[in-house]
Amino acid sequence: MNDCVFCKIVEGKLPSYKIYEDKDVLAFLDIKPVHLGHTLIIPKKHSETILDTEEKILKKLIVVTKKISKAMYESLKLDGFNIGINQFEAGNQIVPHLHIHITPRYKDDNFKLWPSREYRSEKERKEIQEKITKLLK
Amino acid sequence: MNDCVFCKIVEGKLPSYKIYEDKDVLAFLDIKPVHLGHTLIIPKKHSETILDTEEKILKKLIVVTKKISKAMYESLKLDGFNIGINQFEAGNQIVPHLHIHITPRYKDDNFKLWPSREYRSEKERKEIQEKITKLLK
Repeated sequence: MNDCVFCKIVEGKLPSYKIYEDKDVLAFLDIKPVHLGHTLIIPKKHSETILDTEEKILKKLIVVTKKISKAMYESLKLDGFNIGINQFEAGNQIVPHLHIHITPRYKDDNFKLWPSREYRSEKERKEIQEKITKLLK
Repeated sequence: MNDCVFCKIVEGKLPSYKIYEDKDVLAFLDIKPVHLGHTLIIPKKHSETILDTEEKILKKLIVVTKKISKAMYESLKLDGFNIGINQFEAGNQIVPHLHIHITPRYKDDNFKLWPSREYRSEKERKEIQEKITKLLK
């Protein structure tokens, strides 16, 4: 895509600190890391979200994600990490080109997960379950 | 694993609201959702993190994740969603059995991502890049 920042990185028109590259996948350092070493993994072929990405590309991405997670975990002596894909603007996706974050985590960083609550009733839960599963049949 | 909550769900010894099931993968509603419909996808065979999960299982998980994301996006009329894997206690992993979160997101939910900063120098960035890539060679 002409105006896509990540496509420009793939084409070498914008610089990046590369972590990994193969025929279909590129990984590079996030320019505004949550912790140093925060890495983004992208398909070279433009797609916006997981919904419009081919299964064979997704399979390659997850295998590379495992490989890079291991390298980060060992080389940066992490206590933990988060793998994340933010989808659509409402899901905090900034660049509309699919990217997997690997975010380093440390015992003392005190990041909190988003707030959660329990279902108010079995009825509420069952309705939601049925809505989703209906589209999986 | 005998004392693993998710293994007990797989074995039917603990109840769950199932969203999807096949030979290798199970998906069910998170009991404390960030938003209603928040779903967890797990491998039936116990592994703790992505690091000790076989590639063939990871490939199956990501394909199911796409399928369920699509069903959730459409059935729950989401504005966006987050796919996340929290790894190790320091990464906010509560149950030590690999699980992929799909978290519904809405335009007005105002959740904020974790704080980030820029690298202080090219040197700092280059050092981190070299640490990680050394283990990928």
